[in-house]
Amino acid sequence: MIVDIINKKRLGKELSYREIDKFFNGYLDGSIKDYQMSSLLMAICINGMTDEEVFALTKVFIDSGDVLDFSHLITNMVDKHSTGGIGDKTTLIIGPIVAACGVPVVKMSGRGLGYTGGTIDKLESIPGYNTKLTEEKIIKQIKDIGIVLTGQTGDLAPMDKVIYALRDVTGTVSSIPLIASSIMSKKIAGGADKIIIDIKVGNGALLNTKKDAKELSRLMKAIGKIYQKEVITVISDMNTPLGYAIGNALEVKEAMDVLRGRETDSNLYDLCIALSSQMIQMGKNVDEKTAIKEVFEALNKGRAYEKFLELVKAQGGDISKLTVSDKKKYIKAPKNGTINKINALALGKLSVSLGAGRVSKEDKIDFGVGIKLNKLEGEEVKKGDTLATIYYNKDFEMPSIDDIYTIE
Amino acid sequence: MIVDIINKKRLGKELSYREIDKFFNGYLDGSIKDYQMSSLLMAICINGMTDEEVFALTKVFIDSGDVLDFSHLITNMVDKHSTGGIGDKTTLIIGPIVAACGVPVVKMSGRGLGYTGGTIDKLESIPGYNTKLTEEKIIKQIKDIGIVLTGQTGDLAPMDKVIYALRDVTGTVSSIPLIASSIMSKKIAGGADKIIIDIKVGNGALLNTKKDAKELSRLMKAIGKIYQKEVITVISDMNTPLGYAIGNALEVKEAMDVLRGRETDSNLYDLCIALSSQMIQMGKNVDEKTAIKEVFEALNKGRAYEKFLELVKAQGGDISKLTVSDKKKYIKAPKNGTINKINALALGKLSVSLGAGRVSKEDKIDFGVGIKLNKLEGEEVKKGDTLATIYYNKDFEMPSIDDIYTIE
Repeated sequence: MIVDIINKKRLGKELSYREIDKFFNGYLDGSIKDYQMSSLLMAICINGMTDEEVFALTKVFIDSGDVLDFSHLITNMVDKHSTGGIGDKTTLIIGPIVAACGVPVVKMSGRGLGYTGGTIDKLESIPGYNTKLTEEKIIKQIKDIGIVLTGQTGDLAPMDKVIYALRDVTGTVSSIPLIASSIMSKKIAGGADKIIIDIKVGNGALLNTKKDAKELSRLMKAIGKIYQKEVITVISDMNTPLGYAIGNALEVKEAMDVLRGRETDSNLYDLCIALSSQMIQMGKNVDEKTAIKEVFEALNKGRAYEKFLELVKAQGGDISKLTVSDKKKYIKAPKNGTINKINALALGKLSVSLGAGRVSKEDKIDFGVGIKLNKLEGEEVKKGDTLATIYYNKDFEMPSIDDIYTIE
Repeated sequence: MIVDIINKKRLGKELSYREIDKFFNGYLDGSIKDYQMSSLLMAICINGMTDEEVFALTKVFIDSGDVLDFSHLITNMVDKHSTGGIGDKTTLIIGPIVAACGVPVVKMSGRGLGYTGGTIDKLESIPGYNTKLTEEKIIKQIKDIGIVLTGQTGDLAPMDKVIYALRDVTGTVSSIPLIASSIMSKKIAGGADKIIIDIKVGNGALLNTKKDAKELSRLMKAIGKIYQKEVITVISDMNTPLGYAIGNALEVKEAMDVLRGRETDSNLYDLCIALSSQMIQMGKNVDEKTAIKEVFEALNKGRAYEKFLELVKAQGGDISKLTVSDKKKYIKAPKNGTINKINALALGKLSVSLGAGRVSKEDKIDFGVGIKLNKLEGEEVKKGDTLATIYYNKDFEMPSIDDIYTIE
């Protein structure tokens, strides 16, 4: 009986592959209801899952849809994933860098939900940019320019999609076993040979402690092993936003600044160098030193930026039409001091209230709104200095400065 | 935000009265969905609730509906509740005993769900018996004969009703805080001054350990204290069915046998004596010895049985038309030995598969089917002896004898 499976997990017992398969597929076919699935998901969140259970769930997710194979086009296909954070536009930067270094990039991204934005939403802020490429178009574009940034093609782990939507509204997002199976099933179904995962830790991320990040890393590597996928993880901070821009068009602009070498002094820049060198090491089987050298060359010679422009054009976008709202408000420093902390979560909430993110799946995003940080962590400020610029279109509630900045 | 409340409980933190009130009332008004409520309920099941949270939830349940007051009719109104078990027909027996001793009984009972039957279903197996009395009729009947056994009048803790239905299908029934607030809110709204709770422990009950039963007892007394209600608890075994009959009409027959003094050698008889003497002590403020004496007199002089017949007649029932299915199958002893154990849960499942109970809220009950135990625990049997008689109407799967009986 259905309820017996829920009760088993409530009591902290291990579910068999058969039970997991029956329950989750029962949800897809409608015989198991939303309220039963959310009850099981909460029991999983609190009581956890054994590795065997996570492997079973990952398999059920993968088996629910298509499994892509680009091996006739790309040997050694490298994919990158971030567990999501405030201001995370790394894919827009490292994709072009890595492609400019000769490693083909086929990256299928998702939309944002909650306080963290999605790469697809950011790309759609470029008027005309098509995020719904057919498989034929993907293959042609890879041959032509070596990079594709698109939404999911085919039907990759569709069960994960519906489960994720339910998790988002039932307080069952923060579960290491559920995060691991969700990410890995999509990556494996997407056809990658090697996978690099950027695990974010901090108040603006799904995971709040390094311990949790390490456990997620272990679990994803264990899943990868079963499917003969090399998995490398990078654990990076998400207490502070990544870079200075939050909001879709603003983040595209910042990505372009990094690619043009105009922005080399941020946590975003450092992380992009680290991630792209890692991808090049994996894709070309070269050592770290060689990879880093190639990354800097691609950036300094403008090839990475050129690749970005090529990508946007190939997918129909017109970068000259990228627009940011011209209504602005400013957050001013209330006193002299040093910025000790910028609260990523508070900024994430503010950006969603501006319309830069979604609260529910049906929400429409306002691409032109967001926040630009004029001062970053560690900087000294004087009373009255502009700390941040808010780009808005509709009324919003101005948060307390103390919620965002700690100045001491 | 709704999800913040769920997340708080997922992390094991205490919810405030305001949060509990907002969440549960949000469910009633539709702004909080089934799948969000079940997620919170599961978090409560696993992480528990503080006493303050239980008090808050009980208050929210009570405030969701009417609160009855019979103080103009009955001073010292005593109510009895059982947490439910297989073959539990005690209300049908102790109600008439207590009323025959001059303590007025107004008992509003529920329907069965899961493997345990409900008093209302049992009463409805008597053709004509009306379980939907108006308040006027209740008042008149109390004045006339001193006893009413009916379904809930008014709208007592309606929120508990919808929450209970959801708990039943989401594996969130076995939670001490949820059981305590569910029972106590109904009893308090029902207008009782003194409440006796029969807490069942065993594989055929909601609670499996004595430790859990003691905790439930403590919690219900603490709730009672806040509302100035005296709460007495009795913890009784439910590994073995209560008495020899399971199934609605069969249980009414057994209750009549006990009331007529034909059945004095069972766990059912002993429990009924204990519960009714307790109720008389509470209702009349007399000591145990006096109360027990009165109970035996009411039984021996036939007054308790007469009271039962009066009750059935007053509520429109025709006891001569009570019928049990005439299709029978027998469970025979596979060997000589002593019956060490009769599995209550296995018999509960069998009775539901016969149609004596409900699997889902919409199921219709077949009043005439059930199981009669011809041999009880501790009895010696010879190979081929009839252990039990199954009264059926439709096809059913005969369970393995070993699942029900342990003969050694």
